[in-house]
Amino acid sequence: MNSLNNVSIGVIHYPVYDKRGDIVATSITNLEIHDMARTCMTFGIDLCYIVSPLAKQREIAEKLVHHWIHGYGATYNPARGEALRKVRIKADIDEMIADFSVGRRPFIVGTSSRAREGRMMTCNELGGLVGKGPQPALVLFGTGWGLTDEAVDRCDKMLEPIDGAGDYNHLSLRVALGIILDRIFSQIGGHHE
Amino acid sequence: MNSLNNVSIGVIHYPVYDKRGDIVATSITNLEIHDMARTCMTFGIDLCYIVSPLAKQREIAEKLVHHWIHGYGATYNPARGEALRKVRIKADIDEMIADFSVGRRPFIVGTSSRAREGRMMTCNELGGLVGKGPQPALVLFGTGWGLTDEAVDRCDKMLEPIDGAGDYNHLSLRVALGIILDRIFSQIGGHHE
Repeated sequence: MNSLNNVSIGVIHYPVYDKRGDIVATSITNLEIHDMARTCMTFGIDLCYIVSPLAKQREIAEKLVHHWIHGYGATYNPARGEALRKVRIKADIDEMIADFSVGRRPFIVGTSSRAREGRMMTCNELGGLVGKGPQPALVLFGTGWGLTDEAVDRCDKMLEPIDGAGDYNHLSLRVALGIILDRIFSQIGGHHE
Repeated sequence: MNSLNNVSIGVIHYPVYDKRGDIVATSITNLEIHDMARTCMTFGIDLCYIVSPLAKQREIAEKLVHHWIHGYGATYNPARGEALRKVRIKADIDEMIADFSVGRRPFIVGTSSRAREGRMMTCNELGGLVGKGPQPALVLFGTGWGLTDEAVDRCDKMLEPIDGAGDYNHLSLRVALGIILDRIFSQIGGHHE
């Protein structure tokens, strides 16, 4: 059994429209849910919220999770189901926070590929904060072009962006999630000491 | 333009067989190539080798790369093509090393989810080593159940496994690649100081 780290994550999907206003992408994919759930399991994340305003997308995601927890997938590969038990599908940020906040006010932290002056914190600082408990943290990730301004306004702090070798910064959300969790928790564990 | 870090990576695909000996999975996917190429661009990796023994798989991968560098994709999203220029498709480890080693002997480092006694090094140590140059490093990742014993025998050293919160360690290769590159290069950059 893995220990839990007092941190949950929320992945906010925004529909992407073309010039005519038709939805061209929504981004919840089978592979992505598995990847993120496995990353969350590895780092001892409490809950992994996936937020999408599109009912059809939520329905597909729920079916996938059910398949691996209760359906044929549970027999075929139990480790997958174990990871997917952390996943909760919600329609918007309010619904996610209401579900998460029962009896506790979360410390909400946003992620972004660019810095927001005056409200930044490092992964190290966040790791220290949740290590002291008891307030749980909810770390938000936005698909596509990142969190909207409305979502950023809901955040108590924003995490330092991931800097690479130069000005190319187009990590996929799956990969950015793994790096950020590693940065938060490897500080606590002292991997980099 | 991004600076290069004197490190290349090789992702080794092994076909997975069912009980009758039929190939059931080979793992080169569109999403994976894009994810890995974007991660490599972000961290200033020189070259990203994708190795598969299956000709059909290599052909599909070559077509995909060509589409984004020279085809319609180059116009549709030039940043994708920029990342995919780093990708080289090879049939086996020997072919990869021959291509890479022209005029230079690489320092070959393997990755694994378990430690191999007597030949481990930390990401920090690797970061320090390549920072001093001039010998380039080639870091190998294995899909599915990881690098084979034959591949591990080719490695000068093995990198520390990624430890999470407990005994669940099933990160996807895409995510593990991002975390390991971040650990190698953020040491150099001093993010964790």
